[in-house]
Amino acid sequence: MKVINKSDLKSLKRSVDQGTEEQRKAVQEIIAQVKRRGDEAVKEYTVRFDQAVLKSLRVSQEEFEQAYESLEGEMVQILQEAADNIYSFHEKQRSSSWFDSAEDGTILGQKVTPIEAAGVYVPGGTAAYPSSVFMNVIPAQVAGVGRVVMVTPPGPDGEVPAGVLVAAQMIGVDDVYKVGGAQAIAALAYGTETIPSVDKITGPGNVFVALAKREVFGDVDIDMIAGPSEIAILADDHAHASEIAADLLSQAEHDARSSSVLVTTSERLGKAVEKEVQKQLNTLPRADIARQSVENYGMIVLCDSWEEALDTVNKMAPEHLEIVSKEPFQDLGKIKHAGAIFLGPYSSEPIGDYFAGPNHVLPTNGTARFSSPLNVDDFVKKSSVISYSSQALQNNADKIARFARLEGLEAHARAVETRKERWK
Amino acid sequence: MKVINKSDLKSLKRSVDQGTEEQRKAVQEIIAQVKRRGDEAVKEYTVRFDQAVLKSLRVSQEEFEQAYESLEGEMVQILQEAADNIYSFHEKQRSSSWFDSAEDGTILGQKVTPIEAAGVYVPGGTAAYPSSVFMNVIPAQVAGVGRVVMVTPPGPDGEVPAGVLVAAQMIGVDDVYKVGGAQAIAALAYGTETIPSVDKITGPGNVFVALAKREVFGDVDIDMIAGPSEIAILADDHAHASEIAADLLSQAEHDARSSSVLVTTSERLGKAVEKEVQKQLNTLPRADIARQSVENYGMIVLCDSWEEALDTVNKMAPEHLEIVSKEPFQDLGKIKHAGAIFLGPYSSEPIGDYFAGPNHVLPTNGTARFSSPLNVDDFVKKSSVISYSSQALQNNADKIARFARLEGLEAHARAVETRKERWK
Repeated sequence: MKVINKSDLKSLKRSVDQGTEEQRKAVQEIIAQVKRRGDEAVKEYTVRFDQAVLKSLRVSQEEFEQAYESLEGEMVQILQEAADNIYSFHEKQRSSSWFDSAEDGTILGQKVTPIEAAGVYVPGGTAAYPSSVFMNVIPAQVAGVGRVVMVTPPGPDGEVPAGVLVAAQMIGVDDVYKVGGAQAIAALAYGTETIPSVDKITGPGNVFVALAKREVFGDVDIDMIAGPSEIAILADDHAHASEIAADLLSQAEHDARSSSVLVTTSERLGKAVEKEVQKQLNTLPRADIARQSVENYGMIVLCDSWEEALDTVNKMAPEHLEIVSKEPFQDLGKIKHAGAIFLGPYSSEPIGDYFAGPNHVLPTNGTARFSSPLNVDDFVKKSSVISYSSQALQNNADKIARFARLEGLEAHARAVETRKERWK
Repeated sequence: MKVINKSDLKSLKRSVDQGTEEQRKAVQEIIAQVKRRGDEAVKEYTVRFDQAVLKSLRVSQEEFEQAYESLEGEMVQILQEAADNIYSFHEKQRSSSWFDSAEDGTILGQKVTPIEAAGVYVPGGTAAYPSSVFMNVIPAQVAGVGRVVMVTPPGPDGEVPAGVLVAAQMIGVDDVYKVGGAQAIAALAYGTETIPSVDKITGPGNVFVALAKREVFGDVDIDMIAGPSEIAILADDHAHASEIAADLLSQAEHDARSSSVLVTTSERLGKAVEKEVQKQLNTLPRADIARQSVENYGMIVLCDSWEEALDTVNKMAPEHLEIVSKEPFQDLGKIKHAGAIFLGPYSSEPIGDYFAGPNHVLPTNGTARFSSPLNVDDFVKKSSVISYSSQALQNNADKIARFARLEGLEAHARAVETRKERWK
């Protein structure tokens, strides 16, 4: 791991794959084909990209049952407990319609309505995560979304990982289709004979999925385009090197492009963590990936003061932030930007990935400056409600008309004046 | 105006200018130049596109004062009252940080933090609206955004409309720069020597502005890309034709591509509105624009039943919706998608454009299916907060480790197990 001073922070690298012009063109072609030829195109691309020949795109009841039987009962219980925790946290995010009634009879308000249909992309391959199912679907369900549709690429055998299917069925999602890549995003955005169109698409994916989401954005809504996973750990001399190293590596094992950064005021800790990372790497099954990640994107930033360390972390706006300090709750108010903040020695980041309840779909690549974790509000929209009273109309019509004329919009002025005249 | 039956709804046209490949390339070049050469590039483009040679990009205190003096005192008061109403409505949208503490000592919560800097694009030319200043800036201010920067294109004389400057200064924005088009969006996204970079850009603009917003999205956040203005009026036989016609025309005068649609169960009303629209058109200063809009995008949809009419409106998901019926409050619950809903005979749409308080930046082109009016929440972001207790760690570490291993992430499992071991 590279050890740097705060002043060298610009050497902090993050990897974002924006895709090439060629990839963008390929994605546009896939979208056009799926729009035009529906299921036929989807199946052709699934043969080409996933080497899978599918009879049916939709996962059958039989497949769900087989998946269920293949998983141990105890594992099913753990998944259920995690789902319960995630429901419980997200229930607290629900917002209500509200209104305000003025004495003159006017009512102004905000009506909250769920999105009608949401689509969730669950990646396949080595990154087939049941936790992704929970984290994307549950906020939509709590918001009251009527229909949640899931897509995930099949393996060459035409099958989808059991854990993903069990997680889906456990929370009541049976609208699952075996399709991945840009063709899956196109199907969700525009619909095919089999796959229903939705109003919003969430979930992570490879560069083709990301490019496709960018293309369909506007016709449907999307969540943020996710980059590789990141963690920043803000620690002082109270932290234990072995724990900090373990947490850095838990991020590093995700992806060779993940970034794990320790920001500390303790030179002792920095050195000890560096050694621990090397030591723990030796026995990790995904050591190859984790080593690449740590070498290319890992970093230990030594700061002269705690203020400098806090400032460093705010500049990074990390996806995950751990604060392992003497009084982490006193530091909370000084954090301006972070997707999820883990406080204190017991709050290891993986606790948030699976189990605690808050969402693990978080803003990456510094977008925590302006984005939030996936949440219930992402699956509702608001409508303003305006019921002007006759009295308010009489009192304000002239002012509104003058304002309209200042902007050169005579028809606006007349619409209000006509009414003032009639209803006086 | 075209009169159709509900079954012909597919003939309802909306105009969205996605831009050409050539325009996209031009915008990419502008962004690259501004990124590389800063103010110099901004000034060059301002000469080329706005025919304005500027000494200084920033609006001076003197210019603010001149603008103030050029506006009548009464007009200033009206602007102030409108701003007060807009503040008052948006204050009610503020959301708080919250937490939940469990008996085992765990704390889970959500911390709300404002975005640090926001940029507002205010269009120039015939569409230079002081109301746009209020509607974009006030939600950011209420959210607690530290710095609000405004950009607006100058006329060939190098000046900006007085109304826009007065509105800005009235609500405390003095960071105003005379720059428009894609070069303004690039400057806000990446900063120049003079213009500070921001984290989120809002505000409407022409196709170059829209394309530029799409390009910088991800590096900064943007609001929805706005299409032409729209209104749907849902009315039964209780409505007055002259008022409905006036409201349709107030939308039509915005833009030749605006769409104004009456959805009604009353053939009498439909016919009467058709005539009234033609009659009122004759005396409108912007009759040319309004006539084109009404002819190309205007429509009267006749429905057999009120349910059918409601269904039609929900399929449209209009930006503005007026309900002028016997009991509009009873219809409110049946509206699934609309940017702003105006209830009853006194609630003419222009009231919402300027004065009532709710935001006039609304989702167009059917995006009300998944988007909301611009609001305070658009200028904050949330961070999850997780403080796991030692007891929760002991109780749940094994489950979390098993879940991690199900996903093949050994380092995740070990991070939690290491802690369980040490802190038991």
